[in-house]
Amino acid sequence: MTQRIAVLLPLLAGIALADPLPSWNDTAAKKRIRAFVAEVTNPESPRYVPPEARIAVFDNDGTLWAEKPAYFQAAFVFARVKALAERHPEWKDRQPFKAVLENDRARLAHLDVPDLLQLVAATHAGMTRREFREIARRWLEQARHPNGARYTSLVYQPMLELLRYLRDEGFQTWICTGGGIEFVRLVAKELYGIPPERVIGSSSRMVFELQEGRAVFRRKAELVPPINDKAGKPVLIQRHIGRKPILAFGNSDGDIEMMQYATAGEGPSLALLLHHDDAEREFSYTKGTEKALVEAEKRKWTVVRIRRDFSKVFPK
Amino acid sequence: MTQRIAVLLPLLAGIALADPLPSWNDTAAKKRIRAFVAEVTNPESPRYVPPEARIAVFDNDGTLWAEKPAYFQAAFVFARVKALAERHPEWKDRQPFKAVLENDRARLAHLDVPDLLQLVAATHAGMTRREFREIARRWLEQARHPNGARYTSLVYQPMLELLRYLRDEGFQTWICTGGGIEFVRLVAKELYGIPPERVIGSSSRMVFELQEGRAVFRRKAELVPPINDKAGKPVLIQRHIGRKPILAFGNSDGDIEMMQYATAGEGPSLALLLHHDDAEREFSYTKGTEKALVEAEKRKWTVVRIRRDFSKVFPK
Repeated sequence: MTQRIAVLLPLLAGIALADPLPSWNDTAAKKRIRAFVAEVTNPESPRYVPPEARIAVFDNDGTLWAEKPAYFQAAFVFARVKALAERHPEWKDRQPFKAVLENDRARLAHLDVPDLLQLVAATHAGMTRREFREIARRWLEQARHPNGARYTSLVYQPMLELLRYLRDEGFQTWICTGGGIEFVRLVAKELYGIPPERVIGSSSRMVFELQEGRAVFRRKAELVPPINDKAGKPVLIQRHIGRKPILAFGNSDGDIEMMQYATAGEGPSLALLLHHDDAEREFSYTKGTEKALVEAEKRKWTVVRIRRDFSKVFPK
Repeated sequence: MTQRIAVLLPLLAGIALADPLPSWNDTAAKKRIRAFVAEVTNPESPRYVPPEARIAVFDNDGTLWAEKPAYFQAAFVFARVKALAERHPEWKDRQPFKAVLENDRARLAHLDVPDLLQLVAATHAGMTRREFREIARRWLEQARHPNGARYTSLVYQPMLELLRYLRDEGFQTWICTGGGIEFVRLVAKELYGIPPERVIGSSSRMVFELQEGRAVFRRKAELVPPINDKAGKPVLIQRHIGRKPILAFGNSDGDIEMMQYATAGEGPSLALLLHHDDAEREFSYTKGTEKALVEAEKRKWTVVRIRRDFSKVFPK
């Protein structure tokens, strides 16, 4: 017995010492993350945070998975608009439906989160939750990015490692997405190991009824305010979690308030902003992130640059 | 070493075999609960439920703590109406404010959840979350029931045991209250061991802003629909948890839909209705539970009668 343990010890030590973030380069960003986690998990540290308060929130599109050349959920909603167009002749003269039906790329490039959610509400209205899940799942199975990639291959490997690392260190990892809560819940467990109760997102109004012994949730055309974007994010984080996150990771102007909330007050906190600057391995863009970059500079948030800080971008 | 283990073994076995529900009489209700838990936690059982799907939801007022002779939160809100009456001269002629200011017991006895939440929204509007928490905490410290009891002594001992038992068996225990989510979160951890992120309740609209580096949530006078009562309960359970509970415990007509949701479809489920029929040790009433009792009979839900099924009602 003793001998066996002696054989195992170096192995166990090796596991304990293995780098939990192998797809991150050894740059300041990674050092900052590791130092923060070491500090808040060390009971001897004056900046110790008990496990129940180790709340980490992550934006989804552009933070956990790629949002270029198109939002995944947007592609789904556009497909729904086209599928339902015959039943809605009025759409061909009304924006933003018209732009979708005409494939008006210039106009589509300017759709914002409220526009997209308006399309979500209109195309999903009347559907039951079960129908929505079936249609969305079927679509996800066959959906391909313009470059041929499946949705499952567009998650960022370094972010998967970060989520796992944080959970191993006693953090709760939450998604806080501008997208529809039901859409993101469909993939959150499989892609990120995040259960449905830890997904916060935008919602359509739903109505409950019992039909022949089955629970039915039917979607209405209205969005439930607030939309989970900008100042709506802290409000829904507060509603769902009931306490302030100590770590927030975003990538766009829509995440500024979430990051302000996480870093407000005096306790230890860490805000990270993913900056897409790698045209070779992914995309390079600042549109929609201009204010966030200024805010990060001003507040000393950690800007994570894909080109510099990620040694590997996608799982393969 | 071996000897010490031999000494400890009977002790450990004693712990493992100890009754987890000592304040429940050995009646059918307790047997039903234990059989259900045994069945869904047994990996060999055809009705096995994996831990992540072992969701249990509990109403609060009248289920986890006493709601008679008055709702605790109602007493708090009435105190706020009185404290703010000078600033709101219009209240003395407007219901339900008038009834509160005149101590019109007949009328107050008929206030329903929407009435109470209207008072909540009006009296708490403009307050920040921090201010609300301070005022409510101070009030809770000095508040006494008409019989002199503090709020902490009005929780049901058998329910505390049930919550702990379910968590020990891998369940997530959630509160699903018609009351204000922020009010119940103030006491949920201390009283029930339930963290803020597992409390679902009614909400007022809040607005986030940053003030001198601090996160401020300011309450507005509007309620966020739906109110977490009746058909609103399944909708907000769905919004917060994203999956169907397998166990629901309520006590009133406002809990019917929550219990319908938990027992809908084909998987294993258990719905329990607490019936207050013990005038000696607590209160005896059916008002507000008439429909739930009929529904329980019709759907074979388990009615837990305090007189018959609880050997002890309050912690002391």
